[in-house]
Amino acid sequence: MNKNDKILIIGAGLCGSLLALRLAQRGYKVEMYESRPDLRTTDISAGRSINLALSDRGFKALRLCGVEDKAREICISMYGRLMHDTKGNTFASNYSGRENEYINSISRGDLNGILLTEAEKHKNVNIHFNKKCTSVDIENTIAHFKDYKTKEEFSINAEVIFGTDGAGSVLRKSYYLEKKFLFSYAQNYLNHGYKELEIPADNSGKHQISNQHLHIWPRGDFMLIALPNLDGSFTVTLFLSYDEGEYNFNNLTSEEKITQFFEQEFPDALALIPKIKEEFLNNPTGALGTVKCSPWSYQNNTILLGDAAHAIVPFYGQGMNASFEDVTVFDEILEKGLSNWNLIFKTFEKERKQDTDAIADLAIDNFYEMRDHVANPLFKEKRKIEMDLEKHFPNQYSSKYSMVTFNDEIGYNEAMKKGRAQDKALLNLIADDEVHTHLNMSKEELKVILEKVKVETNNILEEDKIAGL
Amino acid sequence: MNKNDKILIIGAGLCGSLLALRLAQRGYKVEMYESRPDLRTTDISAGRSINLALSDRGFKALRLCGVEDKAREICISMYGRLMHDTKGNTFASNYSGRENEYINSISRGDLNGILLTEAEKHKNVNIHFNKKCTSVDIENTIAHFKDYKTKEEFSINAEVIFGTDGAGSVLRKSYYLEKKFLFSYAQNYLNHGYKELEIPADNSGKHQISNQHLHIWPRGDFMLIALPNLDGSFTVTLFLSYDEGEYNFNNLTSEEKITQFFEQEFPDALALIPKIKEEFLNNPTGALGTVKCSPWSYQNNTILLGDAAHAIVPFYGQGMNASFEDVTVFDEILEKGLSNWNLIFKTFEKERKQDTDAIADLAIDNFYEMRDHVANPLFKEKRKIEMDLEKHFPNQYSSKYSMVTFNDEIGYNEAMKKGRAQDKALLNLIADDEVHTHLNMSKEELKVILEKVKVETNNILEEDKIAGL
Repeated sequence: MNKNDKILIIGAGLCGSLLALRLAQRGYKVEMYESRPDLRTTDISAGRSINLALSDRGFKALRLCGVEDKAREICISMYGRLMHDTKGNTFASNYSGRENEYINSISRGDLNGILLTEAEKHKNVNIHFNKKCTSVDIENTIAHFKDYKTKEEFSINAEVIFGTDGAGSVLRKSYYLEKKFLFSYAQNYLNHGYKELEIPADNSGKHQISNQHLHIWPRGDFMLIALPNLDGSFTVTLFLSYDEGEYNFNNLTSEEKITQFFEQEFPDALALIPKIKEEFLNNPTGALGTVKCSPWSYQNNTILLGDAAHAIVPFYGQGMNASFEDVTVFDEILEKGLSNWNLIFKTFEKERKQDTDAIADLAIDNFYEMRDHVANPLFKEKRKIEMDLEKHFPNQYSSKYSMVTFNDEIGYNEAMKKGRAQDKALLNLIADDEVHTHLNMSKEELKVILEKVKVETNNILEEDKIAGL
Repeated sequence: MNKNDKILIIGAGLCGSLLALRLAQRGYKVEMYESRPDLRTTDISAGRSINLALSDRGFKALRLCGVEDKAREICISMYGRLMHDTKGNTFASNYSGRENEYINSISRGDLNGILLTEAEKHKNVNIHFNKKCTSVDIENTIAHFKDYKTKEEFSINAEVIFGTDGAGSVLRKSYYLEKKFLFSYAQNYLNHGYKELEIPADNSGKHQISNQHLHIWPRGDFMLIALPNLDGSFTVTLFLSYDEGEYNFNNLTSEEKITQFFEQEFPDALALIPKIKEEFLNNPTGALGTVKCSPWSYQNNTILLGDAAHAIVPFYGQGMNASFEDVTVFDEILEKGLSNWNLIFKTFEKERKQDTDAIADLAIDNFYEMRDHVANPLFKEKRKIEMDLEKHFPNQYSSKYSMVTFNDEIGYNEAMKKGRAQDKALLNLIADDEVHTHLNMSKEELKVILEKVKVETNNILEEDKIAGL
């Protein structure tokens, strides 16, 4: 591997653009191909979420590439969840007891635009739009494309191909179909799909509900969420089963039934979504899938990164952050100066895979937590204690959520293992009446709880270890 | 659905043959197509294990179809594992403390032959050999075939298609490629492959080592096992990494290195495998994969059963038993008299999937247990206590292994959950010095241990429940 190797990146989405930028900064020659038109000059939503949650792991990668400040300019801070019940009553639940820990709503398109523009400032980067990769000959490192405008088909031969072509990756499909090696591969769909709706800004361009929160209408078998946009609107997403329950995507086909469903379950949201019927019937229903696979790379020549290697469901707000963290970790491996791409690729996967597997599992866990547990008394008491612990012992306690979201020095896998044990410890201490909460806990009372949680968490981890878990 | 529906079964292996037999007994018209020649008249091994472990779940299905006795005639009972160390020392570990609980080595080919012969006795069954299914049009319920002898291609239109075509199922691949529905699919390979070798019978046709045991040479990163055959021989299987460790399949390419490896690690086995070099170099190296998927069926028309729906690694000796149990459960669903095939298929999957998922996970667990834990002191002490508990309290204690292998009234999922909690309880009681073993435990001493294990197991299950696990 050397700086003159011709590098081909398939997919100029968030991960591909950031990778191109970083490789360019390191002096590599990058050709990047994207199937969609340039989103800076064309209005495309392509059925994808309009806004996403950006947090510390994402910022760390953006910082590495010198674009953190530009991204922060278009962020809206969300300090916690605001839960809405069926009567329209709300209650808030902060993401952290530490004041400087919050997540950010950011426009996918605007952020992608910033990254493309920064990448293009480097003369060793060329970006080609409207060119769809149709397959990759992994043995010969040749990618086949079709130009959406001219309809021409053409092929690109490269030294190295990075597949950052998302959850439906063509490079990954070529791994599966070519059968050059034993390819472990999993695609798992939830029985729920999603549909995006909109709460517009008010007449003065302001947000109609708190823009400092991620809004949730948890209903057990389904839920609605809303994230704020800079223009005063909210992107609302309904998560609902395709075919189970009284109301589902398969049977919500008439305006009457849609209205009935929202009136019954989300009356306060319904009042803010003027185009509910039109949007519900016309916007696509998206699938929610997790992709895991291994190996990510083939020989010296191709590797999957980002969603192409590890697509996850959106419920931890970590999809983009995990893909950006891929770039951070890949860059650390590049820094080691290993002798060939194969070694770089294998080292990267060995370092990274346990973490991307973990965030995939955590995201599924959070699907159930957000739909259900957030309104559960035991869970609420646990969150109350955790906020107090984080506030009074900021250097001694971090909840699972905080470890995953705000602690980029801990890998996802470690955060998952420790966080799950800690959750189990705390929930059992509460259920067994070994810890009690009241409105104004003293620091001394909290200290006792902190010590109990630590002891119990370590016991749980130790017992699992003895059992070989 | 009615008895005149034309039923097509793709694959006349163990699961397909038993299914054909049962459907024939229920009066359905069955056409079964198999890619291989008739194994009753042709010698084919096709790289598959020559013998398999048959236990209670398998016998239950064979009993349902009236072929249990015929199968028992060709079984060799194995009462426990016999572990071999590198010096050739051995120690035994029974599968159960109850005398009537043991597993059985049986020839795959001979059992398959019995099932084919029994199925063919029914005039409503036709079996077609040498006809390879190449794809299935699931929308129109048409299967496409190629005749290996005449090279002709032809298609079969059926009311219902059962895919019992094994781990490489063509019907399952059609589900994946046709994209008519969201198909959750996982294929996961271990980094280990396997190779079969042979310990021949001695000059008088007798077994050279105990034929009452499943032999294991556990070595941590790799292992050798041997199961007895009726003709006095043993089928030996080496499980070894493809590319990791000092010795692996990729670097064991010379006769010298192969001999060196066996001399160092398995000297007592090497002395009994006269054709080691020839067999090692000529026999294929097989892959070890797990397949999970969902849904198993499409509309009223097609369903996957057996390995096609849930292939597992061989380490729990449950692959064939799980496939046979599919037939038992499917038959129970048929007995309910549901109104259409779609409802039958969905009910079957709902009932069955959690159990086949569980045995897949248990089989992976056992891979690590067999390679490693069986020679670990903590694990050995646990097994000793479990044998004593099963012996003295046969109605009050069953190990995880016993629940999985000998208790067909408990589903795999329940056996896994309870068994894992029980293992964790016992291992932690031993590690914390809360239970002690000595050579001749009195019933009173064991009773105390039994009660401790029960209490601790329930605590573990309760704590997991509170944590939402």
